[in-house]
Amino acid sequence: MTDAPANLRSITVTAFGGLPEIEEGADLASLIGDALEASGLGAAEGDILVVTSKIVSKAEGRRVAAADREDAITAETVRVVATRTHPGGVTRIVENRQGLVQAAAGVDASNTPDGTVLLLPVDPDASARALAEGLRARFGVRVGVLLSDTLGRAWREGQTDLAIGAAGVRVTDDLRGTTDSFGHELMVTQSAIADELASAADLVKGKASGMPVALVRGYAEAVTETLDTPARALTRTGPTDMFRLGTDEALAEGYAAGYAAGLAATRPE
Amino acid sequence: MTDAPANLRSITVTAFGGLPEIEEGADLASLIGDALEASGLGAAEGDILVVTSKIVSKAEGRRVAAADREDAITAETVRVVATRTHPGGVTRIVENRQGLVQAAAGVDASNTPDGTVLLLPVDPDASARALAEGLRARFGVRVGVLLSDTLGRAWREGQTDLAIGAAGVRVTDDLRGTTDSFGHELMVTQSAIADELASAADLVKGKASGMPVALVRGYAEAVTETLDTPARALTRTGPTDMFRLGTDEALAEGYAAGYAAGLAATRPE
Repeated sequence: MTDAPANLRSITVTAFGGLPEIEEGADLASLIGDALEASGLGAAEGDILVVTSKIVSKAEGRRVAAADREDAITAETVRVVATRTHPGGVTRIVENRQGLVQAAAGVDASNTPDGTVLLLPVDPDASARALAEGLRARFGVRVGVLLSDTLGRAWREGQTDLAIGAAGVRVTDDLRGTTDSFGHELMVTQSAIADELASAADLVKGKASGMPVALVRGYAEAVTETLDTPARALTRTGPTDMFRLGTDEALAEGYAAGYAAGLAATRPE
Repeated sequence: MTDAPANLRSITVTAFGGLPEIEEGADLASLIGDALEASGLGAAEGDILVVTSKIVSKAEGRRVAAADREDAITAETVRVVATRTHPGGVTRIVENRQGLVQAAAGVDASNTPDGTVLLLPVDPDASARALAEGLRARFGVRVGVLLSDTLGRAWREGQTDLAIGAAGVRVTDDLRGTTDSFGHELMVTQSAIADELASAADLVKGKASGMPVALVRGYAEAVTETLDTPARALTRTGPTDMFRLGTDEALAEGYAAGYAAGLAATRPE
């Protein structure tokens, strides 16, 4: 931790302005580096940059024409988890190509011109890696990069920012095997620190602030030499997922299977 | 934001030592106030204290004898959402008395002597209110208090800290009606800032650090005059919850109902 007496442990999370509107093909590492220098922050050993995935999508040309946002969502969907009809339309919770379970597959129709939508980066971990490489080369220090997106949660109101891409930042703090002061193993085994960093950064970045990047300083313990620290490891999907299908969907699927079996059981030989 | 040039927006998150092992009946507001003073941090207008709920539970005498941790979980459970058997035992995801959906109902067997477990505070919002009242009276400034706990998530590996109690801190940043630079309404409507603050605090508090409280400085915009800002508002449970029952449980329930209906459909009049 930086500049802290022995009984304090401190991080500083700072959003900075100075980035232009991002166009397709923009060299985002250079632009972020310029803004870091112009702001006076610079980059120090162990800094973590949290970059809103939206500007990465723009730089990577992921803004696509979409007469219909719903069609764009369908195209990005690997698997439908749950749907809910409400007065404003239909909410679809789906697993997308990035392995994320989220509403609308991460397709964003805000902050884009009419008739277009913004898709998530194809490979957010690779995008983070490219940014980290560029920033490490420029500043000559070991920095880490996270890409953030805003996701809803089961059982909680509101959304939080989470890490959908990572390079040079440990995504979990593995406490398995750690014992408490009574010698018992800790129940909590893995803190998802990359998600906590993304959430912390959202507090200063905000959603409409013109500050899409934040710098976390003082958490060098999470910054690694290797850039191979994928946030994809934080996704949990597939047959072992206890919530792989919404409750209504599973009830209906179970009912249909049960009904067929009930009919078959009483059918004459 | 504090001490920041116009193009910077910054918060500082600081965990501090100096708290004794918390015993039942401890005056936690006094002890936290003492530690704030001893650390040199003090308390400033708009500061937010994030307090690990575990020490609140200890002060409130929520450490109970439990020959069997499973029995304690059952007692705290309002509703079972999902269960999963694995080599290490059975994981129960349940809704508890606080409206939280979490593993083991928030019953904690770590950092407690053998034969005892620690339950969550009965009313975490009331606990937060008492702490905020005490700290506001002592320091004569408007501070907010969050109580944090560590929860797993659907579809994500690892756990993050979230706010289970709040007083004097807006728990969401309501962006409904906000428009982007193209005049469209923002898709994200409510940032769960109390959860993001709790996550940020966990980065410095850690799990075994002996620093169960963190101070967030520079986010006064979220601190309110009223202490009536319950984190309970962040819980989403009940019949409209799309994930009110685990997938396997819903499949089985649907199957049983369907099977009975299939049998009945073919039963002779």
